[in-house]
Amino acid sequence: MYYIGIDLGGTNIAVGLTDKNGGIICKDSVPTLREREYAEIIKDMAMLTLKVIKDAGKSLDEVKSIGIGSPGTPDNENGILIYSNNLRFRNAPVRSEMQKYIDLPVYLDNDANVAALAESVAGAAKGFRHSATVTLGTGVGSGIIIDGKVYSGFNNAASELGHTVIVSDGEPCTCGRKGCWEAYASATALIRQTKEAAAHNPESAINKIVNGDLSKIDAKTSFDAARQGDETGSRVVSQYIKYVGEGIVNVINAFQPEILAIGGGVCKEGEYLLKPLREFVDKAVYSRDVAQTQIRVAQMGNDAGIVGAAMLGK
Amino acid sequence: MYYIGIDLGGTNIAVGLTDKNGGIICKDSVPTLREREYAEIIKDMAMLTLKVIKDAGKSLDEVKSIGIGSPGTPDNENGILIYSNNLRFRNAPVRSEMQKYIDLPVYLDNDANVAALAESVAGAAKGFRHSATVTLGTGVGSGIIIDGKVYSGFNNAASELGHTVIVSDGEPCTCGRKGCWEAYASATALIRQTKEAAAHNPESAINKIVNGDLSKIDAKTSFDAARQGDETGSRVVSQYIKYVGEGIVNVINAFQPEILAIGGGVCKEGEYLLKPLREFVDKAVYSRDVAQTQIRVAQMGNDAGIVGAAMLGK
Repeated sequence: MYYIGIDLGGTNIAVGLTDKNGGIICKDSVPTLREREYAEIIKDMAMLTLKVIKDAGKSLDEVKSIGIGSPGTPDNENGILIYSNNLRFRNAPVRSEMQKYIDLPVYLDNDANVAALAESVAGAAKGFRHSATVTLGTGVGSGIIIDGKVYSGFNNAASELGHTVIVSDGEPCTCGRKGCWEAYASATALIRQTKEAAAHNPESAINKIVNGDLSKIDAKTSFDAARQGDETGSRVVSQYIKYVGEGIVNVINAFQPEILAIGGGVCKEGEYLLKPLREFVDKAVYSRDVAQTQIRVAQMGNDAGIVGAAMLGK
Repeated sequence: MYYIGIDLGGTNIAVGLTDKNGGIICKDSVPTLREREYAEIIKDMAMLTLKVIKDAGKSLDEVKSIGIGSPGTPDNENGILIYSNNLRFRNAPVRSEMQKYIDLPVYLDNDANVAALAESVAGAAKGFRHSATVTLGTGVGSGIIIDGKVYSGFNNAASELGHTVIVSDGEPCTCGRKGCWEAYASATALIRQTKEAAAHNPESAINKIVNGDLSKIDAKTSFDAARQGDETGSRVVSQYIKYVGEGIVNVINAFQPEILAIGGGVCKEGEYLLKPLREFVDKAVYSRDVAQTQIRVAQMGNDAGIVGAAMLGK
């Protein structure tokens, strides 16, 4: 049997057909055109699904289920998307709308959980029953896999690890709290930290890299400066890795996943990020006389949404 | 069938026989005499177990299993107690030693997990599949119940929530990190906070309550002062409740248990603790458009160890 995975984003709708191991057979995408009503967007999802199945040379009765990953608060039990800040969806009946066009089971989950499932089935945590995936991007997304399944608490809202406070009364977070991990360890936070350091240290290589235009600073700039031996850049990178590490150690002490996969653009720094991060974590974890969590780079990249959504139906 | 639960503490060994609902039929205890070798202590555990079964008027073949809860790092898979800071146990083969005397399955878990299981089966979280129990005592203990079972990660070391950092670079913790929840929200931390406030505010009611002898301050003193309308006492209590709340919100955002039970002596403050705590939590949790975690006082008290240990075999 095959599985359809749909990555419903604010910019594009990506649909893929996968095998039972999450291997993509065929995929395609169309623009979301997010200002539209949900009924139109869901119709496009259904049409693209039928096209992908046809393009793959398969028939509908070879497909077991449709999984949909989206930002926001999906309610799989009732088949609705309660809320999404990227779309105009408010209590949108995604399952029943999809089933108007395609008579298959439809599963929903949020994008972070789906990414974690993708890593678990086909990526960095393949072959392990307990894993966590943390994505350092605009925010800090996270998903927990326990015994091969997404863990989402009694109300589908668990594993919002980006919104656990690591600095009580610290930096304001988009969620309304102060001092969340996301406010220190997201790419957004790293850019803010880099800009602040550059403003206070005009002689630093950070300023040279962006020709004095601090608005050009991105999540790579401090790492680039540090690699040039720049003191300010190195300090920003060290402090950032410490913030990432504080949250990673919290996740380990709380969940003890066998694999902890880290995704997002910052991971392109590779060992430059991971080596000091692992050193920090090794010293700080609570239980040292037991088997230790392995920290790895997430592998699924842009396919995580499709593959993880597809595997919701497995 | 009946179940034996053993609460192996640094001071006493308590043994109880329970029914399948965790109801205690008969219980007894003996001093641990912790300086002894593990073989002697385990022999006493076995003898007391046989006595309790006999005192209850039951026979060994009516007993399904023996569960043992202890501080430290039990390894249930291999039936050993890897380490306990209260006992001289190092890789002690608890299961095989017990089975020299009694031929029954033996299960091990740590005291915090066992307490959480007790609340789940017979206490504050009875009837709910997902719960968390946090004990504010000398440290901050915690156990997570998922789908009726103790969650302990891939290596039996999960749910050390007291050792998640809420103030990066904050107060030193016994675990070696700085800023752990335990260093702010334990009874020990509250006593430290109360002493500091009393020292800086000699006119406060705190000082009067202890007749100027700050060594007499306990976890109740600041609450008593606050109830007298004392400003310093009120400030300590408010700040302490905020620290407790920061961690509680972290637990909710991470795990979304249906019930979160709070145990330990501080809970005797009742609504004086819980009302402002709930107000703090309600405002700070990430997901507000879903069903919310209920915060309750733990109910099992001193029986938690026996009942939870007994239910390990259920």
